[in-house]
Amino acid sequence: MEISLEIAEHTIRAAKKMAQEIGIPMNIAIVDNGANLLLFCRMDKAWLGSMDIAIKKAKTARFFNMETGEIGKLSQPGYPLFQVEVSNGGLISFPGGIPLKNKEGEVIAAIGVSGGSVGDDYKVAAAGADAFAKYECE
Amino acid sequence: MEISLEIAEHTIRAAKKMAQEIGIPMNIAIVDNGANLLLFCRMDKAWLGSMDIAIKKAKTARFFNMETGEIGKLSQPGYPLFQVEVSNGGLISFPGGIPLKNKEGEVIAAIGVSGGSVGDDYKVAAAGADAFAKYECE
Amino acid sequence: MEISLEIAEHTIRAAKKMAQEIGIPMNIAIVDNGANLLLFCRMDKAWLGSMDIAIKKAKTARFFNMETGEIGKLSQPGYPLFQVEVSNGGLISFPGGIPLKNKEGEVIAAIGVSGGSVGDDYKVAAAGADAFAKYECE
Amino acid sequence: MEISLEIAEHTIRAAKKMAQEIGIPMNIAIVDNGANLLLFCRMDKAWLGSMDIAIKKAKTARFFNMETGEIGKLSQPGYPLFQVEVSNGGLISFPGGIPLKNKEGEVIAAIGVSGGSVGDDYKVAAAGADAFAKYECE
Repeated sequence: MEISLEIAEHTIRAAKKMAQEIGIPMNIAIVDNGANLLLFCRMDKAWLGSMDIAIKKAKTARFFNMETGEIGKLSQPGYPLFQVEVSNGGLISFPGGIPLKNKEGEVIAAIGVSGGSVGDDYKVAAAGADAFAKYECE
Repeated sequence: MEISLEIAEHTIRAAKKMAQEIGIPMNIAIVDNGANLLLFCRMDKAWLGSMDIAIKKAKTARFFNMETGEIGKLSQPGYPLFQVEVSNGGLISFPGGIPLKNKEGEVIAAIGVSGGSVGDDYKVAAAGADAFAKYECE
Repeated sequence: MEISLEIAEHTIRAAKKMAQEIGIPMNIAIVDNGANLLLFCRMDKAWLGSMDIAIKKAKTARFFNMETGEIGKLSQPGYPLFQVEVSNGGLISFPGGIPLKNKEGEVIAAIGVSGGSVGDDYKVAAAGADAFAKYECE
Repeated sequence: MEISLEIAEHTIRAAKKMAQEIGIPMNIAIVDNGANLLLFCRMDKAWLGSMDIAIKKAKTARFFNMETGEIGKLSQPGYPLFQVEVSNGGLISFPGGIPLKNKEGEVIAAIGVSGGSVGDDYKVAAAGADAFAKYECE
């Protein structure tokens, strides 16, 4: 099953709602199964430099079917994946990218968020991922 | 004045409505005053390769404050801007990118559309631009 | 349905067989539904510069769900898609890239071939596409 | 002597067999004497992001005629090759890339593998390198 634009819009709406609640303007991106951009928005006053980071977080999460922060744990100096970020045209390996799974548990998309602290980014991405999961499984 | 996400969403909604009316799934992008991506969506079944073209059309229209097709007239063999498309990381110089002006006539954003014939692309971009102009001027 | 490595290997074997028959060493690439590289081989003595062209032909065919040569008809000077090749990190718009469809007629992959004249490239790509179609539909 | 496609295929078959034995779908790449891509395959369900890493591991191993993990020891903070990974369009400096030598001990190719832990990647690359060495020396 592929992700549709409708469910991507539903997912981003939930993420934006969380961003508004915590008062941080965000860049939010969703990529499809092939890691290709499907939907993107930059909220008013959000950092310009976070546009590319949000897209790269979404791609990174789909490239490896894991949360971006997990890769960052392994890419530190002295760790197994040191400097993996130079691959694939640039990976982002800190939190804010989360794979999106269908009800069979298969990754079919990913969300990436950037604009605040990594904690805030993660919270907003997780709100999107939750909305996606509920939509997919009901 | 800057373009807000709200008016960009309003603009894309009008463009998507036209795309649905003519039955062609499109990629639609809006860039802001700085030619930076603000909003993007890929409709279900739209060409994967049109994602980049839609974004480049929007950027091209804002880079030169003119419709993308105008540049294409000048970039033909023997004409003054021959091969200008290799600049700026890649320009698209055929129709489908339109600058968006505020009521003072100043370009503050641009829309780019790709997914069908250049005639269809233009029609969808123009529908977005019309909605933008009405919103801005009322 | 996704293309499997097994069917991609079957497809490339048929293409290589045709390349051997006509005596031209080729570069042959297959991309999946998301236009991501799945399988690639360069035959002995094939042009080094055709490696990138074969991959770009496969991507281009999937990006627009059409044979690459069709795009080239529209990208000539004075035609609607002039200079479209600068998009998507570089398109190849002459023959040798063919989309691969499942039995429902949906494009799920593409093959790209480069190494000889465009006529030879096309013949080898078509041999691969034929083998793919027979495998898929039997 | 140059590596032939036939021996590259023999090498990748041995690597794939090991990947199947340990149950990890891998991306596997072989580059030739000029560090140019010769053969590549992505096994079903292998990470999309490992495609580029496998190719970069093979290139890195040939660029410096050493196992990729050796470079990683020298590229840590405070070490002589700190940040060398940004060169050559991106190097990968953790295990999984191994140079391939002919019976005179000259490097004529390299294999790169990515898709699991670096230990798994190395094991699969080593299985390919072993098969290559036996083929070359018998």
